Amino acid sequence: MKAFNIIGKDIPRTDGKAKATGQAVYADDIKLPGMLHGKLLRSPLAHARIVNIDTSKAAALPGVRLVITGADLPKVTTGNWRLFPKTQDEYALAIDKVRYIGDEVAAVAATDPDIAEAAIELIEVEYEELPGVYDIESALKDDAPLLHDGYKTNISIDRKIEYGNPDKAFAESDYVREDTFTVQAQSHAYMEPCSCVSQADQEGRVTIWTSTQTPYIVQCLLASALNLRENDVRVIKPTVGGGFGGKMELRSWEVCSAFMAQKTGRPVKFTLTREEELMAGRRRHPMTIRSKIGFKKDGTIMAKDLHIYLDGGGYNAMGPTACFLAGNFGAMLYRYPNYRYLGEHVYTNKPPASAMRGFGAPQTLFAAETQMNMAAEDLGIDPIDLRLKNAQVTGDVLPGVATISSCGFIESLEEVRKMSNWDEIRKNPKPGQGIGIGCYSFISGGVFNWFNTQYNFSAAEVKVFEDGTAHLLTMAADIGQGVETVMTQILAEALGLQMGDIRITAADTAITPQADLGAWGSRLTLFNGNAVLDAANKIKKKLAGAVAAKFNLNSIFAIEFEGGRVFAKGKPDRGMSLGEAVAFVQKMQRGEPVVARGYYTPRDKGLVSPAFSFGAQVAEVNVDEETGQIQVKQMNTAHDCGTVINHMSVEGQLEGSIQMGLGYALSENFVMDGGKTLNTNFLDYKMPHAADMPPSNSVCIDTYEEEGPMGAKEAGEGLVSPTAPAIADAVHHATGFRCTDLPITPEKILKGLKKM
Amino acid sequence: MKAFNIIGKDIPRTDGKAKATGQAVYADDIKLPGMLHGKLLRSPLAHARIVNIDTSKAAALPGVRLVITGADLPKVTTGNWRLFPKTQDEYALAIDKVRYIGDEVAAVAATDPDIAEAAIELIEVEYEELPGVYDIESALKDDAPLLHDGYKTNISIDRKIEYGNPDKAFAESDYVREDTFTVQAQSHAYMEPCSCVSQADQEGRVTIWTSTQTPYIVQCLLASALNLRENDVRVIKPTVGGGFGGKMELRSWEVCSAFMAQKTGRPVKFTLTREEELMAGRRRHPMTIRSKIGFKKDGTIMAKDLHIYLDGGGYNAMGPTACFLAGNFGAMLYRYPNYRYLGEHVYTNKPPASAMRGFGAPQTLFAAETQMNMAAEDLGIDPIDLRLKNAQVTGDVLPGVATISSCGFIESLEEVRKMSNWDEIRKNPKPGQGIGIGCYSFISGGVFNWFNTQYNFSAAEVKVFEDGTAHLLTMAADIGQGVETVMTQILAEALGLQMGDIRITAADTAITPQADLGAWGSRLTLFNGNAVLDAANKIKKKLAGAVAAKFNLNSIFAIEFEGGRVFAKGKPDRGMSLGEAVAFVQKMQRGEPVVARGYYTPRDKGLVSPAFSFGAQVAEVNVDEETGQIQVKQMNTAHDCGTVINHMSVEGQLEGSIQMGLGYALSENFVMDGGKTLNTNFLDYKMPHAADMPPSNSVCIDTYEEEGPMGAKEAGEGLVSPTAPAIADAVHHATGFRCTDLPITPEKILKGLKKM
Repeated sequence: MKAFNIIGKDIPRTDGKAKATGQAVYADDIKLPGMLHGKLLRSPLAHARIVNIDTSKAAALPGVRLVITGADLPKVTTGNWRLFPKTQDEYALAIDKVRYIGDEVAAVAATDPDIAEAAIELIEVEYEELPGVYDIESALKDDAPLLHDGYKTNISIDRKIEYGNPDKAFAESDYVREDTFTVQAQSHAYMEPCSCVSQADQEGRVTIWTSTQTPYIVQCLLASALNLRENDVRVIKPTVGGGFGGKMELRSWEVCSAFMAQKTGRPVKFTLTREEELMAGRRRHPMTIRSKIGFKKDGTIMAKDLHIYLDGGGYNAMGPTACFLAGNFGAMLYRYPNYRYLGEHVYTNKPPASAMRGFGAPQTLFAAETQMNMAAEDLGIDPIDLRLKNAQVTGDVLPGVATISSCGFIESLEEVRKMSNWDEIRKNPKPGQGIGIGCYSFISGGVFNWFNTQYNFSAAEVKVFEDGTAHLLTMAADIGQGVETVMTQILAEALGLQMGDIRITAADTAITPQADLGAWGSRLTLFNGNAVLDAANKIKKKLAGAVAAKFNLNSIFAIEFEGGRVFAKGKPDRGMSLGEAVAFVQKMQRGEPVVARGYYTPRDKGLVSPAFSFGAQVAEVNVDEETGQIQVKQMNTAHDCGTVINHMSVEGQLEGSIQMGLGYALSENFVMDGGKTLNTNFLDYKMPHAADMPPSNSVCIDTYEEEGPMGAKEAGEGLVSPTAPAIADAVHHATGFRCTDLPITPEKILKGLKKM
Repeated sequence: MKAFNIIGKDIPRTDGKAKATGQAVYADDIKLPGMLHGKLLRSPLAHARIVNIDTSKAAALPGVRLVITGADLPKVTTGNWRLFPKTQDEYALAIDKVRYIGDEVAAVAATDPDIAEAAIELIEVEYEELPGVYDIESALKDDAPLLHDGYKTNISIDRKIEYGNPDKAFAESDYVREDTFTVQAQSHAYMEPCSCVSQADQEGRVTIWTSTQTPYIVQCLLASALNLRENDVRVIKPTVGGGFGGKMELRSWEVCSAFMAQKTGRPVKFTLTREEELMAGRRRHPMTIRSKIGFKKDGTIMAKDLHIYLDGGGYNAMGPTACFLAGNFGAMLYRYPNYRYLGEHVYTNKPPASAMRGFGAPQTLFAAETQMNMAAEDLGIDPIDLRLKNAQVTGDVLPGVATISSCGFIESLEEVRKMSNWDEIRKNPKPGQGIGIGCYSFISGGVFNWFNTQYNFSAAEVKVFEDGTAHLLTMAADIGQGVETVMTQILAEALGLQMGDIRITAADTAITPQADLGAWGSRLTLFNGNAVLDAANKIKKKLAGAVAAKFNLNSIFAIEFEGGRVFAKGKPDRGMSLGEAVAFVQKMQRGEPVVARGYYTPRDKGLVSPAFSFGAQVAEVNVDEETGQIQVKQMNTAHDCGTVINHMSVEGQLEGSIQMGLGYALSENFVMDGGKTLNTNFLDYKMPHAADMPPSNSVCIDTYEEEGPMGAKEAGEGLVSPTAPAIADAVHHATGFRCTDLPITPEKILKGLKKM
């Protein structure tokens, strides 16, 4: 494999300066002539029938241009799982019923945001309150009130996986244990609240600038919600301040802003407040996870039986995917020759849970990894040794689901053992001090076509110019994760150019090539990277032809692209600058510019993902047994993300993952009173801050993923999973208290220690 | 020829509602985070050496972020005639010398436009005043001060044409006359003053939103002015409020805003005031035109000898083209078997003249048409008969210059004679009432590659979608003339769709296909229209293939596109909707969208234009012999613009042309005191208003231009020429006074009448 010039280096973000100096334009920065400001009226009740809505006082308020309710909008439900329309269960504005506190009921557009806010207060809604269900248990009771018509229970979706013969294998096991784990909700807590601006043209076509991870999905679903044709909607993604899964669906304000722009003939902006985000926003699924696992005496895993309830809140949102993936993550990391999974997605009268960084993995892997640690203790095997014994390796097959085409898990385990001085510390416990381990595997994008797209999954257009520059157009959405930097690197490397030679235009559904399914499931590096390479290779073929023609080269010559030049391999004088080669091709084409499009769709790659990342993390903690306070002293991580495209970016992703994992493990939680979220600001909702971050070391395992662009695969999403089980294990090592119910609060520790 | 569904109809402008309701975003409407406001310091002297500039007080003013002078910018001159770098004579900010009152000397960027304005006042410039020249005559004197180094006179450019043997032909003529005509400057008077906003990224690359007719030219020249690569500049054309030739060059404020954005790291906006536009803006060339013409007794033209001086002002600007075209327009309309032209472009210490609607034709044709009318009088031939005798016809050749591939001139003359009741009115003169004629021919875009582009002259990208819509991307610049509507019509017609099925994105150099040379010389309908058709035909080939494959059609079947369907000609059941055909091709292409690019470059079309329009206009006037006041009672026009693409648009262009021609004939003029323009507002600069407009009738002659898209050619620019000579002729018919010096003011009439 040839050495890289750009790939693997510490390359600053292409949008770094713009963000740091305030030049970057986020949706809320957009100001258009005559623009109106929108606000939403949200339900104060968790479950109620809407008897009547009187908008007359609001509409009469000076400055108010339009007030709408669900009755004004086309009666269309939307949802991301377009392949299964039954799962699409949400109206933009509630019709007949509200199902959670914060459910959108009406919208106002006014000349000023304060007027819109005042008008919202003037809308009079008469509700008939209904009994609600606020957790999985009560939602599943026989006499539980049902949230949605057409269902006999509150279970909206289930998913089963089974291979081998689990029952037989359990019977043949030497050691079987069964545990129940519970995990809480968590906020995406992106720094930029959701925001959008819509404008309609004289044909009623809509352009929407929206803070989204998935421009193409918003385009299609918004068209459907407004009875427009797909291409009567243009979605432009401005700079986005984080998504983490929380911005990958069509949302109420997007529909309202587009509809109100059509009706008023003026642009309409909606920007959510932090309070709205926290009281009504999407969140990570709380789950109840029952896991049964069987081993041979020597630690060989025989079977696993996993039953997960997902607490979905009032609507499906991305619940089907979480339900689908949780079962797959349960089968990853270790060789489970016999496996059974049942996932059930349960409606409750709370804000809908949905996609969030890790997408089912942090929950499932907290359970799986904690249970591994519990089993290791019982079996008397070091938890790393137990993992090594069962670890998946390259070539392993999940029957009917996936093949693991590259795997650096064993190397990760060995590396993290070494770097954390595991054997030494683990064998010499000190009171109040502990070390623990958690591991993860993650997907590099999804294979299953739940959105039912007719396009390739990713696409890229590359133009090259005689001034030696290139332009990359793609619908891949940079939401802060750095995909524009990564795509620029891949193209620069492929064409032998520098970063500054590449311009990138991303994520405008009208002008970037159809289509890209969006930024979720860590898909973009692999999917869009492959599309970029496909386009680059078509360009290179043309430019190589120019060199071959100009220098009359034998057709077997290889042509190299390096240092801004195109030349015969080993004969650098038989070549020209890339710009000259472009000019040559352009002449040959009688003035046609040199352009190519590339595509990627995973084919014959099972149901889940074309490639999987792996990694292991060790946490060191101090626990104050008086107060139950946990101090995380050190995180050590070794992970396999294939070829590292941008070392600095991977480091940043790791830091961010640890921050999010730390919050999940220790402090973040929605405090609920029935259906009401009590902590709706960042004082009460406790995220770890910069000062809370532990020191961290990391190593990237050197692997090469054949299906990935230049050998790359997922980095930065899977890493959000190992932190909680590693900390929980370290707390157990320090105190003897094993926490199976996140977050691990001081109260739980004190209560747990008291029991021992 | 098949009947059209969309072409030739009264189709409302695609951007009409946005403009009428204030939704359209012009450059000055753009607001970006942290944006600075720029102002220019202009020279108060017409000709002076810059001894010293002290910007320290300005820079110290709170709120000022940057002050620059010519010394700060790269020392690069620019100009549109890139093929001849010697003609590129203008710095963005003056270096060493200023050459007209208003010449740009320094620029300020501040947090607020008022602060910028105040800072401008604080810049101290020490000038050494030089003697100036303010008209052609004094500029050409032997001892005239020279404006530019490297020239021996103030003549910067000349252009010669000669064919046949004019001297011999004059000797053989029965009647020869020689006249001198003078014409004044005129303002473009676009409603939107020039405005731009620039933003620079961390690589120093610039995005500029600018009110321009020529995004590609601005891109290339701005790159050159800042020592950037061509594609390090992205030009986005927002909605533009008129250009008329006045917005087709790179201008000082564009360079300053881009440079200051790079230096400050913040966006910088410049918007000119009307006063700046009128005191220093581009304008139509004043000319002195000496024309000698010879006839046989029967009225047959034998020869013409034309010598034109163009008063160019301080810099060349688009003077080379005006100089080039004036000579071509002198050879149009009539068969001149022997022809000689000498054009000389003269520097004077006034604001540079440049391109303006008609581009040399209104001046040349005022002279040519007035001289025809004078000759007709002397020869005792009706002026329409004299024209009919000599009129150019389809197939006529201008040796080495052009072939006239379609020509409806004779029909225009006959039509206008009929509709104006010419013979009746002309033969029965009434005191103070007159009828007069003027004619024109114009180009449909230019063939000569003065910009030295390496791309095709026009390009278009068409995407079609399975929802039955299409998207057209083009760099063709709509500046109010309606080209986006026309291109949408052409594509809709070609694909058998409706207007609302087409989305158009125009004129962003980064995302619309390379390249288009811009909106000037009435080029876009023909040039870009052909590119659109080329792309549409490629798309149609693919979709026709889908129908042929699906219905297993014999390959000789013709496939029709109509009513949103694609079907075998004569067998409408063997077909499908266009959207279904797209979906079929997309499946066949395994998810690749259906996209094609089309191009047009005129080849083997001489030096001037691939096609010429023709027309005749009759004016009826009343002249008050007491006051010299002229009242235009009626305009009758017949013209040949090939296939009419949009009848309403052609009517609008005609109305606008009459308005501009009326101002040129009667009232518009820059009142100068040496180099100083005295009328710098719309109270003092007298344009005709809506209330001044005469009733108008018009007929479009039915011709078909083989080189044009669906038979179309120029409409709306040539028509600005006949109005002045027609009115002058009518004034002569009413009063006996023949005016050869525009504008025809009451003072000139009274003076003229006194002489008789």
